[in-house]
Amino acid sequence: MTQLPLPIVRLLPKAKPQVIRHGFPWAFANELVMDRRTKGLSHGGLVVLEDAERKPLGLGAINPKAKIAVRMLDSDPEAQIDEAWFTARLTRALAHRAALYDAPFYRLVHAEADGLPGVIIDRFGEVAVVQPNAAWAERLFDPLVAALVAVTGVTTVIKNGTGRARALEGLDEELSVVTGAAPERPLLVPMNGATYLADVMGGQKTGLFYDQRPNHAFAAGLAKGGRMLDLFSHVGGFSLAALAAGAESALAVDGSAAALELARGGADASGLGDRLETRQGDAFEVLEALGKAKERFDVVVCDPPAFAPSKTTLDKGLRAYERVARLAAPLVRQGGYLVLCSCSHAADLKQFRDASARGIGKGGRRGPLIYTGFAGPDHPLLPQLAEGGYLKALAFHL
Amino acid sequence: MTQLPLPIVRLLPKAKPQVIRHGFPWAFANELVMDRRTKGLSHGGLVVLEDAERKPLGLGAINPKAKIAVRMLDSDPEAQIDEAWFTARLTRALAHRAALYDAPFYRLVHAEADGLPGVIIDRFGEVAVVQPNAAWAERLFDPLVAALVAVTGVTTVIKNGTGRARALEGLDEELSVVTGAAPERPLLVPMNGATYLADVMGGQKTGLFYDQRPNHAFAAGLAKGGRMLDLFSHVGGFSLAALAAGAESALAVDGSAAALELARGGADASGLGDRLETRQGDAFEVLEALGKAKERFDVVVCDPPAFAPSKTTLDKGLRAYERVARLAAPLVRQGGYLVLCSCSHAADLKQFRDASARGIGKGGRRGPLIYTGFAGPDHPLLPQLAEGGYLKALAFHL
Repeated sequence: MTQLPLPIVRLLPKAKPQVIRHGFPWAFANELVMDRRTKGLSHGGLVVLEDAERKPLGLGAINPKAKIAVRMLDSDPEAQIDEAWFTARLTRALAHRAALYDAPFYRLVHAEADGLPGVIIDRFGEVAVVQPNAAWAERLFDPLVAALVAVTGVTTVIKNGTGRARALEGLDEELSVVTGAAPERPLLVPMNGATYLADVMGGQKTGLFYDQRPNHAFAAGLAKGGRMLDLFSHVGGFSLAALAAGAESALAVDGSAAALELARGGADASGLGDRLETRQGDAFEVLEALGKAKERFDVVVCDPPAFAPSKTTLDKGLRAYERVARLAAPLVRQGGYLVLCSCSHAADLKQFRDASARGIGKGGRRGPLIYTGFAGPDHPLLPQLAEGGYLKALAFHL
Repeated sequence: MTQLPLPIVRLLPKAKPQVIRHGFPWAFANELVMDRRTKGLSHGGLVVLEDAERKPLGLGAINPKAKIAVRMLDSDPEAQIDEAWFTARLTRALAHRAALYDAPFYRLVHAEADGLPGVIIDRFGEVAVVQPNAAWAERLFDPLVAALVAVTGVTTVIKNGTGRARALEGLDEELSVVTGAAPERPLLVPMNGATYLADVMGGQKTGLFYDQRPNHAFAAGLAKGGRMLDLFSHVGGFSLAALAAGAESALAVDGSAAALELARGGADASGLGDRLETRQGDAFEVLEALGKAKERFDVVVCDPPAFAPSKTTLDKGLRAYERVARLAAPLVRQGGYLVLCSCSHAADLKQFRDASARGIGKGGRRGPLIYTGFAGPDHPLLPQLAEGGYLKALAFHL
């Protein structure tokens, strides 16, 4: 298949082509000559991007209606975006993960930073879950999957098209098995010395997030021999790592019964079932109840959903982070640890840290910050987009 | 001994006493009523700080000539700063490190965040090295040392008064053994699976920095089976951790022959001596020579001294970080890793990251950021001063 000649899209004279030459992965709509021809290009189609002097900047995918109008795919304007191209991208991505981890359980592709804009691939041993959260990848899904199977040897490929990012791209919701058979039971995932369960067909509520791996490990180290309270526990990320590292007990609290069932299943699979307690309920209500009961833990972890996913929700989100910290801090014994996480894009590190420290103070406690962590190294970031590192984990010694 | 009544120092009405009530550890000279009596107080003496309405904020130590005029020691204005007081502070500091580490090798006290402003204590098993970098701690050094010996059981206490911070406080240079006998040979320090040598009587050039421990560990994980180039290696922090983690070889480059000798001694003590090569010389010159020779490494680490220790040196410092990145990036093989560190207070994370990415680009390479690390958890930070976290380590996948 040959894709040439591709439509040409041009930057305005005011745009700065050198940022793209230096690796910035996007061209914004307001930087482009938006004539009728460009506006009429089909969403997710391939284009050659040129600067205002008609020098090519590379090959990209266009969405003429989006703020991010062109996502760059290759600096070579003559690149063929075919299975061989995907193979090269995936081979590099795999080599990085193979260098990092002993077992094939990781985020294999993290979108732009792995050279595949909008594409997320998580690997669970022989199973890969692909999120093609951009129209170009939806169009080129078949060669992507063919390359994925060839490069990794996975036997099952699941397409997970349930995220918010897909809706923004105008793509349909979809959850389907593309290659192989749907797993009949939750997958066993070894991580940080524990075994987790991931129900990859159950959607976001029951999947598994690899991004917290280094922060799970750090908090687990603090919990040795102690009691952990794991709020917004999901499938037990912090709890199981802590129990595997030698915590005496963990109480996992989440609103999702399905997630807690996977947490219990993971604890059983790890031989730690007798030390995990779970409680289904609203985390804020449980926090208040535990506070009234004057419960104390050696380590309290709060890993809530994104309270500030966008700029318009920032103030409200920061107040929610402050509230979590205010309610959680009194539950930490003197000399214990409080671990607070944010997966909000809109709240930067300083804003989240300030909100957390304010909440701790209002909760009547005080103590230094001993750790600042981010998503693990299987979640690379382009340096130009590093401010957007969404995941932050802070540990305080109270 | 009773210390009351102490002189009273008062905040101006424009100052914000609540920041100190919420744990900010300093009052600045321009926030104080600087009358003749206050100006005449002796440097390092204890005072009671009051707000403009004469309500006490706590007990502090004064330096009437410094920008940081009062360092808060206790929120209780009637606290007795005696051996029992130091014992309480050190007991808490020790409990935190004992929870973190299997062996007693760590920074035991990290100044303000451990409630002892200006005081640094590093522990090497039975030996403690104290840096009393503030006049109040110099005055109260005897009860501090007595408490240190009682709490930790160390048999040797060394006073290291050689740092820049001490000169700023108007204190003399001094390096002496306060308790026990001076170690006759470098101390053996287990860390990250290797054994390091620390010559604690040799000053900064031959001591050991604990702050990079988590970053050493991360870089070591990248170097398994590969070749590491360790620039500005000091006593081999990155090299020895990498070799212990399974790196095939490491080349340590430093300007100090004494530091390299300790690196070799550490490699021998770790049973890794045949895999460490050292080269004495200017790191920039060695970088250029290796570049001309077209040498390639799997992992290149640059951990230079602070290029931007103060705001006046910021621009020059950032250019130096960019230059390091530009020269080092071409030495990384395709698909290898570049680890860049900064211990500059003045360069914040974003500035350092931008300078690094710019340098990598000018070196003709490109690649995502996979890791951002800071000083380890035995180097706590007050949340109010967390922006000043001086140590940053970035890893790029090139």
